[in-house]
Amino acid sequence: MKFVKNAIGRLVPTEVNGEKQVPYKGIGKHKPSGRKAAPLIVSAADFPRDGNKLQPTLKYALKKAGLKNGMTISTHHHFRNGDLVAQQIFDIAHEMGVKNLRWLPSASFECHSSLIKYLEDGTIHHIEGSMNGALGKFTSEGKMKGIGILRSHGGRYQSIQDGEVHIDIAVIAAPTADPFGNATGDRGPAACGLLGFALADSQYADKVIVVTDNLIPFPCIPWQIHGNYVDYVVNVDKIGIPEKIVSGTTEVTKSPDRLLLAEWTVRFCDEAGIIREGFSFQAGAGGTALSIGIYFAEILRERKMKARWARGGSNKYLVKMMEDGLLDYILDGQTFDLEGVRSMRENPNHVNTSPFTSYNYHGKGNFASMVDVVILGATEVDVNFNANVVSHSDGYLLHGIGGWQNCLFSKCTILPVPLFRDRIPVVRDECTTICGPGELIDVIVTERGIAINPLRKDLIKTMKNSKLPIKTIQQLKAEAELICGKPQNPEVTKNPVAIIKWVDGTVIDTVWKLKL
Amino acid sequence: MKFVKNAIGRLVPTEVNGEKQVPYKGIGKHKPSGRKAAPLIVSAADFPRDGNKLQPTLKYALKKAGLKNGMTISTHHHFRNGDLVAQQIFDIAHEMGVKNLRWLPSASFECHSSLIKYLEDGTIHHIEGSMNGALGKFTSEGKMKGIGILRSHGGRYQSIQDGEVHIDIAVIAAPTADPFGNATGDRGPAACGLLGFALADSQYADKVIVVTDNLIPFPCIPWQIHGNYVDYVVNVDKIGIPEKIVSGTTEVTKSPDRLLLAEWTVRFCDEAGIIREGFSFQAGAGGTALSIGIYFAEILRERKMKARWARGGSNKYLVKMMEDGLLDYILDGQTFDLEGVRSMRENPNHVNTSPFTSYNYHGKGNFASMVDVVILGATEVDVNFNANVVSHSDGYLLHGIGGWQNCLFSKCTILPVPLFRDRIPVVRDECTTICGPGELIDVIVTERGIAINPLRKDLIKTMKNSKLPIKTIQQLKAEAELICGKPQNPEVTKNPVAIIKWVDGTVIDTVWKLKL
Repeated sequence: MKFVKNAIGRLVPTEVNGEKQVPYKGIGKHKPSGRKAAPLIVSAADFPRDGNKLQPTLKYALKKAGLKNGMTISTHHHFRNGDLVAQQIFDIAHEMGVKNLRWLPSASFECHSSLIKYLEDGTIHHIEGSMNGALGKFTSEGKMKGIGILRSHGGRYQSIQDGEVHIDIAVIAAPTADPFGNATGDRGPAACGLLGFALADSQYADKVIVVTDNLIPFPCIPWQIHGNYVDYVVNVDKIGIPEKIVSGTTEVTKSPDRLLLAEWTVRFCDEAGIIREGFSFQAGAGGTALSIGIYFAEILRERKMKARWARGGSNKYLVKMMEDGLLDYILDGQTFDLEGVRSMRENPNHVNTSPFTSYNYHGKGNFASMVDVVILGATEVDVNFNANVVSHSDGYLLHGIGGWQNCLFSKCTILPVPLFRDRIPVVRDECTTICGPGELIDVIVTERGIAINPLRKDLIKTMKNSKLPIKTIQQLKAEAELICGKPQNPEVTKNPVAIIKWVDGTVIDTVWKLKL
Repeated sequence: MKFVKNAIGRLVPTEVNGEKQVPYKGIGKHKPSGRKAAPLIVSAADFPRDGNKLQPTLKYALKKAGLKNGMTISTHHHFRNGDLVAQQIFDIAHEMGVKNLRWLPSASFECHSSLIKYLEDGTIHHIEGSMNGALGKFTSEGKMKGIGILRSHGGRYQSIQDGEVHIDIAVIAAPTADPFGNATGDRGPAACGLLGFALADSQYADKVIVVTDNLIPFPCIPWQIHGNYVDYVVNVDKIGIPEKIVSGTTEVTKSPDRLLLAEWTVRFCDEAGIIREGFSFQAGAGGTALSIGIYFAEILRERKMKARWARGGSNKYLVKMMEDGLLDYILDGQTFDLEGVRSMRENPNHVNTSPFTSYNYHGKGNFASMVDVVILGATEVDVNFNANVVSHSDGYLLHGIGGWQNCLFSKCTILPVPLFRDRIPVVRDECTTICGPGELIDVIVTERGIAINPLRKDLIKTMKNSKLPIKTIQQLKAEAELICGKPQNPEVTKNPVAIIKWVDGTVIDTVWKLKL
């Protein structure tokens, strides 16, 4: 296996799972050439004229779709930890003796740990998507047959659109669908809000199977997934566990440290002039992010101002903000609680988006770069503002990228992070894995001070007289090391277990097998 | 130029405008091979990061899009006779001295007659789309430089999707848009309802220009056209003449003959068991069709039943039907009046569709074949139930195909037509032009009797004891000829002026230059 140092100084393989890779070249430096993937032309003559695409079982549909060794099977993660469909697909594949599948989930969750047996017995060759928790541990320890590929939500769309990944069979679990394959996520017993993560799959896969537990007569309105892309529909008893799909109870943080991060982040935004009439923002669903959203709302209410749009993950706080008239639109990528689902179903200003609209870097622009401020997390940040979001400092791969890389393109990207976790510095000389280049990360907020990226001279000037504890990133690093000592790098082998793709399909970093 | 007899016995050219053609082979007989058109991969790095794609003028945008000789320029027809944009495009092209353009409108209207001067001076080489009125006359008289190509709405989507027609520049007139290019037709001074006819253009054209007279801050919700497909946005004073876009006054027929056609059609549907709980229908916007819709509503109201869905062209009668609880959904392809626009804007059950969802024959099915009954017009019907919708019996090309061919795939296709017009038989031995094969046309309703296609043995059986005047098509033809005499065929040359495509891209017939 050959390696090359990429533009951000990381050693990356030039070939992965038999496919040539392009090393990261810098932001906007890799210009794609060629044409998008071109799906096969089909004819309505080969589909039932009455629109009824129902098949008796998922197994039957998978067989009809031609499931065989070496295929790529895609799923979406809108059911999060309540997914009951991915497991069934690979149970069937195993039963049929099918081997060497590539699984392309838009993300994986703890509930998918049960698939480890299929990684072990060769049913699944490798995963392209997030490898969280037990799957991450399995991967980090070098037990997966192939090399994992991690992509952002936008990168997943880009890779499918660009033909880097060809999906043989897409299985789309749908909370409500009609026999033609029109499907929606905003209603039904397993309602999850939207189905945007399955959009690329529906558009580009050779065969598309919709699996639902709420079959309704045509037409299923809204049709978040177009039946015109769907080959087969399967009606089953249960596709997801509702309480694990949407929590129903997203709560703000009560940790004083996290509340401080939230408060400082909001004060920073305010002093920097970001919170103004018509501004836009994106915050996640974590406790700190939720608190930040609530503070934004308070400020807007006080000053009788209104935000124009927020990018979701939606939750009850964001929904309340809109319903209170403090926000015009929620452009939602995934709904995190029941209020999010309700709002999406009822309110035309709560709009379902997709990685195509929001994140795809190989489109004619996307929404992510228009956001005034985005608040993100990280496991590590280095002195060049590069950050890590997939591995921990012990070298274990434990998270997916999600939309994180894509969001970095916002007008101001802020990472509120603790200076250290379990006495391991978060701000450090070097990241265990680089997921995002420092040039795109503007501000690091820790409980012991705030660092502004030196590239953001404008922000540094604006914040010159701030009473917030503005420090350099080196100062923050020194403070962390003073308390925790210099962090040790994890002991790794020279064998890659996964690569991290940048938003343009190039390889930004490698995850190495751990020395155990 | 070589000709060949196709499967329906018509002489068609094997090559048109330098491109090879496939003769019609029969319904569902032409199986496409190969892959869909693959647009160029682009990078967000080449688009403004703040999402602002505004250009000072349409001319500036067209130049930036690289307008040059021989290109294909597409427009949509949602503004119908109130379109102010197509004219501007070709004025600019003329001004720039650009020649030999192919114009690909989704339909043309009387207001486009002014483009004849550009067909004459070589700015436009030929039209692929409907050639109505003066444009039709111009074409029929052999004055167009190239050969016209007529496609159904579904065929237009199919041809773009399949790469038969490559659009260089799509210009999408949008009643409301944001600077990113998200656009909607359901609001704004030139509101036209939806923009579905421009969907393929946005997806497949190299360059996409959105022209609006109602620019709003991002995000434009709903985004019927995705800004992610759009290169440039132009803000102008006026894109359309509202009263010519939507009439505001669609009226039912008062003609006793037409009312009889409507009444018999509805009685036929009723006796045939088509009008039942949960049925679906599509009727056009003409006077007869409107009356049929009203009769349907009356029956449903009386029997306390409900239709599940209607395919639009929407109008105030269809909207009232839905608002009165007699219809669950309107799946709308174009809005014909102000009530249609209002309903689409306000009612989530009034859904905007596109030729992709409704008509594309090279998709995994489409909506048209699921409709229980569709009511269409025709200029001529022959004794084999083949019908004509583009030319008159004098040989003049005067209408576009619209969705007519696509709708033939419904479960029951009924053509209510007068037996003769201006003493020229409508039912006859042979059509001047065949647009749709008789196998798909089930019933002809005339004021002197109703003919059921012999292929529909089921319908013939069901209607055996009907008191409706059921006759054979030969009987109808004989009656017409008894009154009007045997119709003369128009005198034509051996030079084709246009071809008629079938829904699968094959050539079903030829329109010949008239002997003048």
